[in-house]
Amino acid sequence: MNEQLFWVAPVASLIALAFAAYYFKQMVKCDEGTDLMRKIGQHVREGAMAYLGQQYRVMLVVFGVVAILFAVLAYGLGMLNQWLPVTFICGGFFSALAGYFGMRTATLASTRTAAAARESLGGALKVAFRSGAVMGLVVVGLGLLNISFWFFLVRKLQPDADLVIVTTTVLTFGMGASLQALFARVGGGIFTKAADVGADLVGKVEAGIPEDDPRNPATIADNVGDNVGDVAGMGADLFESYCGSILAAAALGAAAYVGNEAMQIKAVVAPMIIAGIGILLSIVGVYFVRTKEGATQKQLLKSLSLGIDSSAVLILVAAAGILHVLGIDNIWGVWGAVASGLITGIVIGKATEYYTSSSYKPTMSIAEQAKGGAATIIISGVSVGMISTAVPVLAVSIGTAAAFFCGAGFDISNLADAGTLSKGLYGIAIAAVGMLSTLGITLASDAYGPIADNAGGNAEMSNLGPEVRERTDALDSLGNTTAATGKGFAIGSAALTALALLASYIEVVRIELINGGTKMLEFSNGMEAVTTKDATLMDFMAYYNVTLLNPVVLICVFIGSMVAFLFCGLTVQAVGRAAGLMVEEVRRQFRESDGILKGTVEPDYARCVSISTVGAQKEMIVPSIIAIIVPIAVGLIFGVGGVIGLLVGGLATGFVLAVFLSNSGGAWDNAKKFIEEGNHGGKSSPAHKASVIGDTVGDPFKDTSGPSLNILIKLMSIVAIAMAGVTVAMSLI
Amino acid sequence: MNEQLFWVAPVASLIALAFAAYYFKQMVKCDEGTDLMRKIGQHVREGAMAYLGQQYRVMLVVFGVVAILFAVLAYGLGMLNQWLPVTFICGGFFSALAGYFGMRTATLASTRTAAAARESLGGALKVAFRSGAVMGLVVVGLGLLNISFWFFLVRKLQPDADLVIVTTTVLTFGMGASLQALFARVGGGIFTKAADVGADLVGKVEAGIPEDDPRNPATIADNVGDNVGDVAGMGADLFESYCGSILAAAALGAAAYVGNEAMQIKAVVAPMIIAGIGILLSIVGVYFVRTKEGATQKQLLKSLSLGIDSSAVLILVAAAGILHVLGIDNIWGVWGAVASGLITGIVIGKATEYYTSSSYKPTMSIAEQAKGGAATIIISGVSVGMISTAVPVLAVSIGTAAAFFCGAGFDISNLADAGTLSKGLYGIAIAAVGMLSTLGITLASDAYGPIADNAGGNAEMSNLGPEVRERTDALDSLGNTTAATGKGFAIGSAALTALALLASYIEVVRIELINGGTKMLEFSNGMEAVTTKDATLMDFMAYYNVTLLNPVVLICVFIGSMVAFLFCGLTVQAVGRAAGLMVEEVRRQFRESDGILKGTVEPDYARCVSISTVGAQKEMIVPSIIAIIVPIAVGLIFGVGGVIGLLVGGLATGFVLAVFLSNSGGAWDNAKKFIEEGNHGGKSSPAHKASVIGDTVGDPFKDTSGPSLNILIKLMSIVAIAMAGVTVAMSLI
Repeated sequence: MNEQLFWVAPVASLIALAFAAYYFKQMVKCDEGTDLMRKIGQHVREGAMAYLGQQYRVMLVVFGVVAILFAVLAYGLGMLNQWLPVTFICGGFFSALAGYFGMRTATLASTRTAAAARESLGGALKVAFRSGAVMGLVVVGLGLLNISFWFFLVRKLQPDADLVIVTTTVLTFGMGASLQALFARVGGGIFTKAADVGADLVGKVEAGIPEDDPRNPATIADNVGDNVGDVAGMGADLFESYCGSILAAAALGAAAYVGNEAMQIKAVVAPMIIAGIGILLSIVGVYFVRTKEGATQKQLLKSLSLGIDSSAVLILVAAAGILHVLGIDNIWGVWGAVASGLITGIVIGKATEYYTSSSYKPTMSIAEQAKGGAATIIISGVSVGMISTAVPVLAVSIGTAAAFFCGAGFDISNLADAGTLSKGLYGIAIAAVGMLSTLGITLASDAYGPIADNAGGNAEMSNLGPEVRERTDALDSLGNTTAATGKGFAIGSAALTALALLASYIEVVRIELINGGTKMLEFSNGMEAVTTKDATLMDFMAYYNVTLLNPVVLICVFIGSMVAFLFCGLTVQAVGRAAGLMVEEVRRQFRESDGILKGTVEPDYARCVSISTVGAQKEMIVPSIIAIIVPIAVGLIFGVGGVIGLLVGGLATGFVLAVFLSNSGGAWDNAKKFIEEGNHGGKSSPAHKASVIGDTVGDPFKDTSGPSLNILIKLMSIVAIAMAGVTVAMSLI
Repeated sequence: MNEQLFWVAPVASLIALAFAAYYFKQMVKCDEGTDLMRKIGQHVREGAMAYLGQQYRVMLVVFGVVAILFAVLAYGLGMLNQWLPVTFICGGFFSALAGYFGMRTATLASTRTAAAARESLGGALKVAFRSGAVMGLVVVGLGLLNISFWFFLVRKLQPDADLVIVTTTVLTFGMGASLQALFARVGGGIFTKAADVGADLVGKVEAGIPEDDPRNPATIADNVGDNVGDVAGMGADLFESYCGSILAAAALGAAAYVGNEAMQIKAVVAPMIIAGIGILLSIVGVYFVRTKEGATQKQLLKSLSLGIDSSAVLILVAAAGILHVLGIDNIWGVWGAVASGLITGIVIGKATEYYTSSSYKPTMSIAEQAKGGAATIIISGVSVGMISTAVPVLAVSIGTAAAFFCGAGFDISNLADAGTLSKGLYGIAIAAVGMLSTLGITLASDAYGPIADNAGGNAEMSNLGPEVRERTDALDSLGNTTAATGKGFAIGSAALTALALLASYIEVVRIELINGGTKMLEFSNGMEAVTTKDATLMDFMAYYNVTLLNPVVLICVFIGSMVAFLFCGLTVQAVGRAAGLMVEEVRRQFRESDGILKGTVEPDYARCVSISTVGAQKEMIVPSIIAIIVPIAVGLIFGVGGVIGLLVGGLATGFVLAVFLSNSGGAWDNAKKFIEEGNHGGKSSPAHKASVIGDTVGDPFKDTSGPSLNILIKLMSIVAIAMAGVTVAMSLI
């Protein structure tokens, strides 16, 4: 059989989609509760669909324009891969489709979760979690199905083509997924925080009504925002990482084993097979998640962890088996790379939990500082966030080193050897695949968060009893913890994926050089010329002078670092401006209709959703253009060496900055909750007021800018890959 | 004559010291004002000397231990340059001496400035600015005198030694300067903000007494802190950059012209000569700084700018002349590099002014956001700070590229050519020297700030009339603007200096390899072996695999980025903790003696100074150890390639992060002042309260962590250079 094991990937994808459909149907059958609950749910659902509709309309235009551009470059000027225009649209479409299913499920599930919470905690958890699993399974199912389909198709159509060409062609699928993720994550991130901040500033602070009060016109937008950010945004982000890592691994596998066809095909299908197994065992993990009535927060968290950890262990065992059956070379090396990735993911998750959960010292110390006022809580949150970058960065560094060492067959004494470097880089990409192999279930626990949050909002607005609210609160609080660790996981996997994409960039350049007629690489320093086809990665590095003493490379590293900060600053600013529009709208509604605050007139929820939507779409333009233009411009001005410098600078700084922003934000959030639980004076104490300021500052950090950086680092890589042909054709250096 | 022009350097240094002595004597002769003024001045002076005494005692121990360690490594194991133990102590000693003179002058000058302000604005400006010039001239004088002395001595003692060996030996002088800068800048930064925050929190907020009130026990410590941070700290930072850039340029010059002895010596002395000319023309610039009574803020700023800008223009003209006389190759290239550096410095200064002065949109928009409360002003300050990184980074990038292009003789078509790369890197180092050539006068305007600030404090505490206070306020406000632009200049020059040090690292490695007996570089990828002596920089890059696809290099770039954040988080945390001790002490004094608040009992100022001193010394231990250990550990574990990756990652991220922190902090500070001038409700409005929180958050950003990053990026480079022998000897990779 051997390479026929490839079929594990599409079959597992279909099974994932079937389970998603099954969970969806089960959820829809559940009781939706009272009329009021239904009505509120309806509002949120309509808002969410209105948001998606608007986003997809804008995307249709953008995708159309870019696709035409790509078509001109590809078919007119012959500078791009011929498949790019098609795979580009396909990648975007399926990512958007996954987002649509996830949002639809989440918004249907929240009322049902609230309704189930009237009966029991366990029942509510089951509804919420399995609905979250719909998103998880749809993302991995659609992602892997597409990859298998394109791989199969391109190979069928070009049966004699080298696998390097086939895999680098399929790699272009990532460009569409990446652009859609930009809309979902950056636009969504701005939407959710604009609505949140707007609702809080006028509702809580000015009008003095509680959170989730139906009299607040922005409250529905706020609830929609939770779904937009943590379901659609997170889903698109991870869809991109998932596909990107598998595609990059396939391309690097093909490159690492050039000249050994039997092994090459195995190296290419291995990441798909591992992903397929990961899907199946994620589904198994879903069944480990259950709880009993009156469970404590810790028990709830344990039951979620049990699901994810069991999946991880099962995947490790199964991967060893299937790699043996596949008969890949360096079995234990590839397996070690998978393990490195899985362990790195778990370490990052634990570190994130340590730095952002109020059960541990860092967040407690931030809460303590709240007693000194707003300034001291901000300062301590910033310092904790910055210090918290150490463990995730070291984890990724060690994980990367281990994966490289394993991938290279446990011998890296001669890096200049063509095989060592390529195989090691393949190992790094396999680590990314390994880390993301549990995505089916980890994303379930991410998407679970907003469902539980919205269920709580629904229970509040529908005046359900205190015991219901208590249950939804418990589920919501659990969701906050999983949201923080989920962010850590998303960042870590984005960093590994970007690293894998960076490594595969050179393979794409090689193909473009060959297509462009460059048969030999002629070195300028007296090294012997080598054929482009047989050049090692080190030859390419020498050819393009990609060393750290080349000022072009150095300058571009600087620029990459700066772009991460600039992008981040622009997204933070965007939230501020979009929130300002929301504040004005809510004030206007209160002013123009006295009945709203009295509760006799229903506010215009839809208008708030639409304002946030339009604001987010508008505000994401400038940062998005920067993310797309900079790698293209650097490629045209500085050539291949500059692009690699840019990607490394952006990746290194963006990764660390994202961890800092996410963890600071998460820690402030939980410090506030810790005070609300009655510590340091409890609610309405001066410490609480200070902590609210900390939380508000942290909101755009953790929900807009931090996650947007995941997109930036991957998008810059994928743009560079997509435009490699143009860079090679136009470059003067 | 030609290379005899070298003598311009020591002669100019001596002239600088003579002028410094002259200005000092003139200042001491000025009237010191009333008895109360004298007494307060006495307190601050005693506090400052107590701080310095304590710092120097700790340094004596640390320097002693490190010197012994170096001696063992150098004389016992033969792993280090034989001169290092001696030059190390010397570099530290003279940097400390410059700090001592500067502090002594500044603390003597503030009372005299206040006294002069009773008469006229122009007189007060003259006293303050010329006293600032003492610091500026002492730093450049002692720095350049030492460099010339060591260069002369080492050359005399080893008349036949290659200039590369001579210059890399003298380069070790930077290690001592760097370690002393660590104490002065990081320890000083923690001291100044601990005192400031402590004084404000208890004095202003709890006890409700105004700033600079003599009843506040921490007020003297606060005034001492201004001197500690902006005189001693800034001075040591720039002493290090100044020496580092000249030394690196000399080393790179020697390397670039190996084999052409006539030219080599010219390239080595050129940076010293340019620095010497810079000193002389800085002194000329001092005489352009004058103003008339009732000058507006803008006119005051103009008169300072006039001094600096005239110096810059004169230096450009004179440099062209002297380079002709020197008869250096590629005259216009070297001159172009000087110009690139000077222009980069000016652009960074202007950009900093734009982003931090309340005359421009960014800071005004932050003040506007204060109306929304503390959270919105923090968010907008963060976003402005992040966006503000774009121009300085682009300026340094373009300046670096231009300097490289000029240095390489306007032809970079063949980077692999040994000459092109070395000469280009020499150009980059020359740009750093050019940027810092105006240091005599730019540092004068930095050191002027705390003198004016303290003069204001003295006037307040001594109950001088409102017209005096008005004059000192005008001078103080000017000092705030120069402080912000001075920080930008310090960061930019630190980045360029670090870049030059990074480039010279490889030259040091070469010497160590030769000393260690490695006569040939044998490549592992089939390239022909070359002799270590004749190897090009590109050969070294190939030998050590310093390409961006080498995972070791990549991982170390990640770690470098992370260390910048970690270091920063630790210093922010340090301020919080040290300020906590100060708060307790002030509370204790108020509690234990009723007379203090009544004004009948003098508080124990000295104890506050001592608490801040001890706190700062203690809190700087952990971040300092990290800054020193990481490059050594990376060298031992990952070898030369890892070290270069680490330095690049730390430099890129540290530079951008420092700009962000400094500009955010500066903008918050001025937004607060803008509101205090009566905008958005003026003093005691809710907007003002919010802006005070912004300013408090910004304090450690701009005065501790941001400036500390300057030290980090240079210190890591110089540690790597000093330990190159150990890295080469021990490295397994």
